[in-house]
Amino acid sequence: MTLVAPSPLSLNWLNLAQQAEARIRPYVPPTPLLKSSALSERFERDVFLKLESRNPTGAYKVRPAFNAILAQLDTARSRGVLTTSSGNFAQAVAYAAKKLGVRACIVMTSDTSPYKIERTRELGAEIVFCGPDFDSRFETVKRLERERGALVLHGFDSIETIAGDGTIALELLNQLDTTLPFSVIVPVSGGGMISGIAATLRQISTDHEVLGAQPSQGGSMAKSIHAGQRVHVGKIHTIADALVASTPGERTFEITRNWAPQVSLVSEKQIHEALLHCLETEKIWAEPGGAVSIAALLSESLPLSKNKPVVCIISGGNADPRILHEILGK
Amino acid sequence: MTLVAPSPLSLNWLNLAQQAEARIRPYVPPTPLLKSSALSERFERDVFLKLESRNPTGAYKVRPAFNAILAQLDTARSRGVLTTSSGNFAQAVAYAAKKLGVRACIVMTSDTSPYKIERTRELGAEIVFCGPDFDSRFETVKRLERERGALVLHGFDSIETIAGDGTIALELLNQLDTTLPFSVIVPVSGGGMISGIAATLRQISTDHEVLGAQPSQGGSMAKSIHAGQRVHVGKIHTIADALVASTPGERTFEITRNWAPQVSLVSEKQIHEALLHCLETEKIWAEPGGAVSIAALLSESLPLSKNKPVVCIISGGNADPRILHEILGK
Repeated sequence: MTLVAPSPLSLNWLNLAQQAEARIRPYVPPTPLLKSSALSERFERDVFLKLESRNPTGAYKVRPAFNAILAQLDTARSRGVLTTSSGNFAQAVAYAAKKLGVRACIVMTSDTSPYKIERTRELGAEIVFCGPDFDSRFETVKRLERERGALVLHGFDSIETIAGDGTIALELLNQLDTTLPFSVIVPVSGGGMISGIAATLRQISTDHEVLGAQPSQGGSMAKSIHAGQRVHVGKIHTIADALVASTPGERTFEITRNWAPQVSLVSEKQIHEALLHCLETEKIWAEPGGAVSIAALLSESLPLSKNKPVVCIISGGNADPRILHEILGK
Repeated sequence: MTLVAPSPLSLNWLNLAQQAEARIRPYVPPTPLLKSSALSERFERDVFLKLESRNPTGAYKVRPAFNAILAQLDTARSRGVLTTSSGNFAQAVAYAAKKLGVRACIVMTSDTSPYKIERTRELGAEIVFCGPDFDSRFETVKRLERERGALVLHGFDSIETIAGDGTIALELLNQLDTTLPFSVIVPVSGGGMISGIAATLRQISTDHEVLGAQPSQGGSMAKSIHAGQRVHVGKIHTIADALVASTPGERTFEITRNWAPQVSLVSEKQIHEALLHCLETEKIWAEPGGAVSIAALLSESLPLSKNKPVVCIISGGNADPRILHEILGK
């Protein structure tokens, strides 16, 4: 994990995303973009859902995982890869590593749900547990990196992961079948996806707008942008258990505060309502973190430009069945 | 409800479906066709899901409802429309009637779930209750027809409803982007959808194959085909509560036994498993009846031709949240 040099604002992200797309395409088909009749009617403009939930392993994280491993495939094959993740990146790295013949070791906190542990283990990765706080994950990764010499993959802040996320923007440009500008609402945790999409679209046209949505339980990116610097918000407790980065990345913070600074905070209740909207009206299965884009749209808390079509990114669909059982019980 | 004359086998169903498509298209956009990576890998051929669950009102029934009303719009407007349905056709007729400025009266059995009653009432239709058995629905419809003179819409056995269902076949021909023959697996209740799809595709090429899936709790179409004549199976109890027609239609029986005679029966357990596959792997929200096509595919009980791409029709997504709460609890 290197520090920020050169500035992430000076890179050619469109080119990086196009390279990433060429690398990952054999393993990651484009995800569907569906028009939502109900949301289009309500908001009087075309509203689309980008179903990243339908990726292999059920979340967008296969994009950065494949891109990061493929960018250094020889090294990854000889040394293995190492990362830490609360769930979706773990499964994505395990899956990509298996497909590419690479050993994978994943550091997980001791309080990770058995559902996520099992899903990762099934994909053949080694799991090493660490203490329950977000920061102890990185310490354990550093220790294992020293001991084993494995290639460390950052879940959201490396050039390869951000560029991997940028492939979503390339698909949108292709699928929206329009040269007119559009708005994209992106679930935010560490900031990888919003950075990748904003940085890529910006090189096409600054008229496209990219906005973020983050649980108010946490909200590390929104609070960092407000503070003008990266802040740590401590251990996060939210139903959106994929969005628990306690601080943004260095690169992702720079990109997001410059190119996608509108990050809306949504309450747990709004996330519940968004999830029910997905299930009852859209007939799709989203994870709570994947539905925060819908939550932000429904809450009308985002300063969307008038009349632009809107895309809500549904970042994943790996809801723990027990959580959904609880929600449906209410 | 007229009897079968001329034979439904002698009609130009392709032409009827094309007329239906021209009528309904302003109200019913094409539904998505998504490739299933998991099922394609498992069955070593392309497997697609046709998401009829994403129609307005959450099921394919808007197709026949709009086509039947639009085909006689002046009559419908002056006299109102009348039908009976266990759920999805009720909501579709209520929705179409509302959009087209037509009064709608729906006959429902007294044991219809409050969830379905509420969803239909919200759409502005009048609801008249009848006894709990399937046949008393038709008697009540006949009485109301005499008393009120309303236009009666049959849920699955009229030319207009079958042709409305045929629009699914036209979309598949357009979406599959292939001139090669394909297989379609269709959930079966009274037989409207399987008839519409089979009759339309047959006029393009007899190499396309259309197969049915029906809960073994019931199975009126499969049993009728086996018996060589329409049989009544009595009141049906299945988790697939949209598939409870106790006997096939006259037209749909003729068409299905001639052009799509392979109807597989699936158990309640297989339907449960299919539903979990939809949720956990496909990240889509299906109703139990909508997932019987997946159940039949997973059970490997259908005589599919080798190597043809397969389309599973997901006929609807209106699962009673309580049923899903139960399933997730297990």
